[in-house]
Amino acid sequence: MPDLPISAPPATDPAALVAGLPPMWLRDNCPCASCRDPRSGQKFFQITDLPDDLAIGTVTARRVHGADAVEVTWSPDGHRSVYAVEWLTTRDPAQGDHRSEAGKQLWEAADLGPLPEADWSAYLSEDGERARVLEAVQRLGFALLRSVPTEEDQVLAVARSFGFVRETNYGELFDVRVEPAPDNLAFSSLAITPHTDNPYRDPVPTIQLLHCLQNAAEGGDSGLVDGFHAAALLREEDPEAFAVLTRTPVPFGYRDARAELTAHRPLIDLDPMDRIREVRFNNRSMGTLRLPAHELEAFYAAYRTFAALLLRPELLLTFRLEPGDCLIFDNTRLLHARTAFEQTGARHLQGAYADLDGLASTLAVLRRTTVLDELAELFHGPGSADYLGEAVTQAEHMLQAGALAEAAGAPAHLVAAALLHDVGHFGGPVSGDELMAGTDNRHSHTGADLLARWFGPEVTEPVRLHVAAKRYLCAVEPGYRARLSEASEYTLHVQGGPMNEQDAAAFAALPGAADAVAVRRWDDEAKEADAATPDFEHFRPLLASLLRR
Amino acid sequence: MPDLPISAPPATDPAALVAGLPPMWLRDNCPCASCRDPRSGQKFFQITDLPDDLAIGTVTARRVHGADAVEVTWSPDGHRSVYAVEWLTTRDPAQGDHRSEAGKQLWEAADLGPLPEADWSAYLSEDGERARVLEAVQRLGFALLRSVPTEEDQVLAVARSFGFVRETNYGELFDVRVEPAPDNLAFSSLAITPHTDNPYRDPVPTIQLLHCLQNAAEGGDSGLVDGFHAAALLREEDPEAFAVLTRTPVPFGYRDARAELTAHRPLIDLDPMDRIREVRFNNRSMGTLRLPAHELEAFYAAYRTFAALLLRPELLLTFRLEPGDCLIFDNTRLLHARTAFEQTGARHLQGAYADLDGLASTLAVLRRTTVLDELAELFHGPGSADYLGEAVTQAEHMLQAGALAEAAGAPAHLVAAALLHDVGHFGGPVSGDELMAGTDNRHSHTGADLLARWFGPEVTEPVRLHVAAKRYLCAVEPGYRARLSEASEYTLHVQGGPMNEQDAAAFAALPGAADAVAVRRWDDEAKEADAATPDFEHFRPLLASLLRR
Repeated sequence: MPDLPISAPPATDPAALVAGLPPMWLRDNCPCASCRDPRSGQKFFQITDLPDDLAIGTVTARRVHGADAVEVTWSPDGHRSVYAVEWLTTRDPAQGDHRSEAGKQLWEAADLGPLPEADWSAYLSEDGERARVLEAVQRLGFALLRSVPTEEDQVLAVARSFGFVRETNYGELFDVRVEPAPDNLAFSSLAITPHTDNPYRDPVPTIQLLHCLQNAAEGGDSGLVDGFHAAALLREEDPEAFAVLTRTPVPFGYRDARAELTAHRPLIDLDPMDRIREVRFNNRSMGTLRLPAHELEAFYAAYRTFAALLLRPELLLTFRLEPGDCLIFDNTRLLHARTAFEQTGARHLQGAYADLDGLASTLAVLRRTTVLDELAELFHGPGSADYLGEAVTQAEHMLQAGALAEAAGAPAHLVAAALLHDVGHFGGPVSGDELMAGTDNRHSHTGADLLARWFGPEVTEPVRLHVAAKRYLCAVEPGYRARLSEASEYTLHVQGGPMNEQDAAAFAALPGAADAVAVRRWDDEAKEADAATPDFEHFRPLLASLLRR
Repeated sequence: MPDLPISAPPATDPAALVAGLPPMWLRDNCPCASCRDPRSGQKFFQITDLPDDLAIGTVTARRVHGADAVEVTWSPDGHRSVYAVEWLTTRDPAQGDHRSEAGKQLWEAADLGPLPEADWSAYLSEDGERARVLEAVQRLGFALLRSVPTEEDQVLAVARSFGFVRETNYGELFDVRVEPAPDNLAFSSLAITPHTDNPYRDPVPTIQLLHCLQNAAEGGDSGLVDGFHAAALLREEDPEAFAVLTRTPVPFGYRDARAELTAHRPLIDLDPMDRIREVRFNNRSMGTLRLPAHELEAFYAAYRTFAALLLRPELLLTFRLEPGDCLIFDNTRLLHARTAFEQTGARHLQGAYADLDGLASTLAVLRRTTVLDELAELFHGPGSADYLGEAVTQAEHMLQAGALAEAAGAPAHLVAAALLHDVGHFGGPVSGDELMAGTDNRHSHTGADLLARWFGPEVTEPVRLHVAAKRYLCAVEPGYRARLSEASEYTLHVQGGPMNEQDAAAFAALPGAADAVAVRRWDDEAKEADAATPDFEHFRPLLASLLRR
């Protein structure tokens, strides 16, 4: 079995890096300060400003801020653009739409452990807590805030904590209220099957909030169904029904004395790559489809199949909203429901609408600071502890590893992986001390899972595999094991010892194996007492560039 | 040439009317009060509540409120539904989405006569004026309000006059201001090429408002381009480029200290029937596409073709916003632009965003009352004048014609056409009196054009052809001419006399000829002095049911 090469340093033939790249695309992405605002990234030119016969002239290797770069001189206008090699070789795994199923974690009720929730005061005071809640709305479709003051209009404060209230014909907020002896039958106590709200609005409000002020009724529990998951099931089980529902615009309508709304949208809306992007489902406000009889037959068959699927008990997450709870959910994805209840006590919710784009923006801004602050905190707090019998602290060890990777000219994602490879020692259920006492803390997995909240697999997978890489190198590289530190030799046993031939072959076949081996080598070297290393702040811009959008 | 039959009364075989209609569809549309709220039309049941083996049981003819109807008894649950024959035979010409190109009038600059505009005080005080402005935004994509007070925040009052303000990261409103000696270069005086706003928001704000408070600068004119028209041109001239732009999601982004927005949407968005539905165009905020090189080549070629097309001078409507002007436009369709200007004087606009659904709702509610009020006003006002030498007033004549059609069991659209056939005498440039003085006022065309604002061709075309029908009947029906009233015989000459054989054949071949002849016969009979006729209010529900959505 051949030894694994450490990842090659970036190609140094600058012409090869831009060969085959469309000139218009490359020039449209020129990062120079006369082409775009360095802060906002907004371009200063129009695509029609570029000459028709635009072509790459000369190509030269450059170093910019310590990173490899390529300078292109353009023909015919002589403009110069400098591109980081890192940027040129990016294959942007985040390409795509965070609104589509590709950016979501689909679920049925049993997949969810504890509900994604937070205390209102913690949510208000801690950026990390707020980011966690908003991230859950984006990824799972909902989150629950607890102990929101049970005062009228508080639902608007919740909406404004992450975005903008979408006023509708129901006002800025609406009341869902049942009195023990209701005057108005509209305040009914009947069960309401899963549906989305306001399908007759276009654009539909993409977020709904429901704040519970009072719930003394028996029954009246809340339910949520992941409409993306249900649609994906339909696609799997009955592709033809799925196709019918994606291509039939359905008229939705609402009419009262002051409003008359109509929208024509399919029940399941796809993006141009045929990924599920929006679900609308509400028989109450569906109008009359006027289509040839055979198309109506096909639509109604598909519609009933989807409706039945949405009622499968395993899809329905149920819980009870208590006074002070505020549910936030994605109204383009989740269907909400309410069980019937006895009119034994008052029940009063206040609802409001908002939009996902404002939430995503708030989350992105929070992440800019909170992720890097959280990581910095790991280095300054728990990382300042002794490193498992080595001569350096854990933080010094990781900073050394990051610096070694950087000095080796490694691409940004490997510098980050080296820098962060041991974060699993801090947050996991089993501490590093316990590891030294003989219990494997699986810190490579814990760390990779933690980092996966913020970074892509190019960062997390080398971290996940860096312990396996040690076991692999012990198996395949003569002399490697003898160079391990004493503590590392000890933990090797706890972690399972050198790999056997079969495991080593399997490891070598993993796509991230070479990167993991590279990280491992920097890990092994990064144990020098009193080595001068940059501090965490030095790596902040590099880490920021790798954060998932 | 055979005589034309009067339109047959509705088919009386009730079973034939429902044969072939899918039972699920028919039952889902049951109009009974236990199936749906008679006021809002919201359904009380879920589609899954209907039995799998639902089938039509017995079918019986009924008369309901003087109209033909069909009663269906359902198997197996015995539910009864009563459907108006009128509803069963509707082929809903309004089916479809008022957001797509199908609901729009596409334009280039020369197609537009005077700009769609209104005075702010008239817009506020007159429902008809307000409806006219909102209808222009819906159909043409924009309208201009004049004499809006030049006070800050007035733009919000304009937005709230038809809908709801969409707050964004720029606030409820934003200032576009250039000072003669600007502190901040962002307040630039450069030309801005046609673009849509906020493509990085999802949902994108669908309406933009720009209110001019000050414009003492030289230059700085405003421009609008119909993006739907441009996209339709691209589809015609370069279908492959059009296809590429509809299926490539483009990343748009915006980033500042407080916001970070990204959206992935195609430049041209289609509905499931492949009709143009939204256009986004803004090179400034387009991010980096990451696609295989050949796809990037194709995208950039298509993008530049579309960009060049959008700059064609004939597409650009230019005008100057003066203080007090407020422009309202569809941000999913129209691109807006600004010419460069000299910094000789201050220029200050305030902008805000809103949404098309709120506007459409306001317009629909206004139409409920304003259209019918306008028509009622014609009957009570100008219609109370003598009817061109007959023994009845114009209003009595039209009410008699409508009543005759109703008594004959004619379908609603023909009752409406009979009732409204002479409205062209009122509003046109040449009066009925001038007709009697020898000038053809072409009142059938004037009336049909007036009615086309509110009714479909099933109403307008019989009105348009009712004069031609007289000239036709004189040519082909022995004895018809002899029965004409004296005034009608006189106007026959002004209108061109009996048709020749060729014209009569052409007329008979028109799709609306039979309906026009039917209306003509009621017209001819409806001249009886002191006949008891219902008043206009009697016909209001029937007219309301025919109003275009």
